[in-house]
Amino acid sequence: MKTPTSLEDLIESLRCLPGVGPRSAQRMAYHLLQRDHAGAERLAKSLAYALEHIRHCEKCNNFTEEIVCELCRSERRDATLLCVVEMPADLLMMEQAHCYKGMYFVLMGRLSPLDGIGPREIHLDRLLKRVQDGLVREIVLATNFTVEGEATAHYVGELLRSKEVKVTRIARGLPVGGELEHVDSGTLAQAVIERREI
Amino acid sequence: MKTPTSLEDLIESLRCLPGVGPRSAQRMAYHLLQRDHAGAERLAKSLAYALEHIRHCEKCNNFTEEIVCELCRSERRDATLLCVVEMPADLLMMEQAHCYKGMYFVLMGRLSPLDGIGPREIHLDRLLKRVQDGLVREIVLATNFTVEGEATAHYVGELLRSKEVKVTRIARGLPVGGELEHVDSGTLAQAVIERREI
Ligand SMILES: [Zn+2]
Ligand SMILES: [Zn+2]
Repeated sequence: MKTPTSLEDLIESLRCLPGVGPRSAQRMAYHLLQRDHAGAERLAKSLAYALEHIRHCEKCNNFTEEIVCELCRSERRDATLLCVVEMPADLLMMEQAHCYKGMYFVLMGRLSPLDGIGPREIHLDRLLKRVQDGLVREIVLATNFTVEGEATAHYVGELLRSKEVKVTRIARGLPVGGELEHVDSGTLAQAVIERREI
Repeated sequence: MKTPTSLEDLIESLRCLPGVGPRSAQRMAYHLLQRDHAGAERLAKSLAYALEHIRHCEKCNNFTEEIVCELCRSERRDATLLCVVEMPADLLMMEQAHCYKGMYFVLMGRLSPLDGIGPREIHLDRLLKRVQDGLVREIVLATNFTVEGEATAHYVGELLRSKEVKVTRIARGLPVGGELEHVDSGTLAQAVIERREI
């Protein structure tokens, strides 16, 4: 007569995933229960594990299982440089471009007032505190060259204007509207080299 | 430097969901860890709970938390009629159409050789056993009027030809290519009333 409550719960729970509506949540639940018990068990476990163990690095705000992540603990990085990126994937792209040896701050987003994402949601209070550690001399803004990424760079630039740090923006070597994650390493490296003070 | 292993595990695990590629798995993982811990916890729990408690009804093959589901245990249903549907959602549509008071068998799929879904995958061995309980007189085939649903109905019809049961197909009142789940109750009810022997 009726769907088991636990199945209804599962379908409803799957809707917390971005882009998943009622129909695809149902399809996912059926698939997991019907054809992929192993995958479902793995998902349940890795989700529970990640929730328990993954936190934000106290220094760079990136995902980590430690209090301060490996990169922030490294003594081989240039502590006078702090690069601000939107997402962890952007940090990975920067690392892969082998053009930068400083530290990072990951905003975990970009300013987007229409989506309710303001300065607090991208942790600018923590960035401000991070900047004032007495070591940082230059902030390299490496947010995307999208409308929101540019607005975020502008906002952060204004915010840091009064602080005793140089604020630079990676060069607009990226195509307008482009995202770091999709650009080749060479272009990204060039953009870092051509960064300019703002 | 590197993504935490547990985050990589989570992203990889999310890819077991149908229609989820590497990019959207990453987006989902970030979203859960960044913006919806409560939803993620609920998902992990309901998934673990469902995996432990949801099984297939021994009689109708539908999802249930019991050995034999509520509908199959009901004494108010006509045990001489057995309606074969593809998915649980189809059973729900049948119930909502208030046109049928018999029992069900849920295939949990339809024949689809190209996807590796053959007679075994849609549990036709169990259907065959179910049909021979001494009570069932008529099998009502209510698979979809899609190419695969029709092929499934045909195959099941042939399979049951030698058994001492009448095999009927709900009337083609549904538009060709139509799916039970998307049809209005009236059309579906009419199709049941006009079912014909095959
Ligand atoms: Zn860090
Ligand atoms: Zn049942």
